[in-house]
Amino acid sequence: MLHEHERIDQLYAKDIKIIQSSQVFSFSIDAVLLANFARVPKTGQVVDLCAGNGAVGLFLSKQTKAKIDAIELQPRLADMARRSISLNHLEQQMTVHTIDLKESLSVVRHNSCDLVVCNPPYFKGLPTNKKNPNEHLAIARHEIHTTLEEVIQISSKLLKTNGRFALVHRPDRFLEILALMQTYQIAPKRVQFVYPKAGKEANILLIEGIKQGKVDGFKVAPPLFTYDAQGEYTPELREMLYGK
Amino acid sequence: MLHEHERIDQLYAKDIKIIQSSQVFSFSIDAVLLANFARVPKTGQVVDLCAGNGAVGLFLSKQTKAKIDAIELQPRLADMARRSISLNHLEQQMTVHTIDLKESLSVVRHNSCDLVVCNPPYFKGLPTNKKNPNEHLAIARHEIHTTLEEVIQISSKLLKTNGRFALVHRPDRFLEILALMQTYQIAPKRVQFVYPKAGKEANILLIEGIKQGKVDGFKVAPPLFTYDAQGEYTPELREMLYGK
Repeated sequence: MLHEHERIDQLYAKDIKIIQSSQVFSFSIDAVLLANFARVPKTGQVVDLCAGNGAVGLFLSKQTKAKIDAIELQPRLADMARRSISLNHLEQQMTVHTIDLKESLSVVRHNSCDLVVCNPPYFKGLPTNKKNPNEHLAIARHEIHTTLEEVIQISSKLLKTNGRFALVHRPDRFLEILALMQTYQIAPKRVQFVYPKAGKEANILLIEGIKQGKVDGFKVAPPLFTYDAQGEYTPELREMLYGK
Repeated sequence: MLHEHERIDQLYAKDIKIIQSSQVFSFSIDAVLLANFARVPKTGQVVDLCAGNGAVGLFLSKQTKAKIDAIELQPRLADMARRSISLNHLEQQMTVHTIDLKESLSVVRHNSCDLVVCNPPYFKGLPTNKKNPNEHLAIARHEIHTTLEEVIQISSKLLKTNGRFALVHRPDRFLEILALMQTYQIAPKRVQFVYPKAGKEANILLIEGIKQGKVDGFKVAPPLFTYDAQGEYTPELREMLYGK
């Protein structure tokens, strides 16, 4: 079941096994943060865009009976996600589609989703690091095959009225994210900043919006810190990774 | 020098004495946070809009040789600010103008300011608390005589190109603040959230923008907490209030 250079990791907090590969794709702490940040419907339809090896959808599966459709462009990553679904016996709940996210509406109905989650590529344009031209990682990290605007536009089309959108991204793109959400009728409602440690600028942002929601009552959730002063995961992060 | 119900408080961290009155106006922690957040030019022109009893301008005076003009609509508060200026021997540096902020350009030149700071009324519309119809406090807290849009519009007119704007406000108005800053050509550059304690939503936001600056490189500064788990001021806040 495992291909060369692959391994099975376990997210103990969610009791999920996941196939990873440092040479192709491994989920990051960002996927764990997004899965913990998103408020998940009990039933209905969830879509995970830019799904990679399926981490976010797999983590969400334990919290909901909703159907989860994962959209991933790269066949190698989509295949890893499918094998992780089998490994966790989630074939009835979760499906991976190897398509460009622009084609999402060919597999999930327009205006049908209760939740769309996305951990998209963070960086504009092409990688500048010529030393490591790993195409799988480059596509996952850089806006080569999609852009922030496309992600938000498609998410809006997928969501039903009052459906929720949850995104993880970098704080330096925050203004652009807010503007695009509002352009595509997703009212920003809640943001959470993740700081690497006390006294440092935020390096991750989590944002939730509601399709056709009211643009008021914006909330800034309690801050999260990744590491403590000793460089160890904080208790909050340990709980997300390893459970209580 | 003191009128009925007035007292002299001292901000030890800045070695500034300030005339206060619980019946008319006392500066809040928000003014201290704003004065600490703003990056102050060494010389030039600073304006404090919605100056109240002059707290923010007084706190800034120790960090700069810039001229500081404070704009305050309420004669009673402007008078308190003037007497505090005398008390601190700052007459050469700081001036209070008892005018509506819409008239600011009659006392400070258009496109002339290096820094505009503002701790404006936070609440939309009229007070709903009929039990305490204290007009001084109501005007300071509610958008009775000015609005967020007016504050940002006037700030933009006062600022020179690349001049800085620093505002303290509530997180629930964050989207509106960002939109208005961009409408009036002040590029949002840095935000800091203040959380009452760990595990709570932010209740204060501090934001800095640059007139006609580039809309990129947005930063989320390290978080501040007002109180620790025991309900005491955190070390950071104590330092702002009482010095090292």
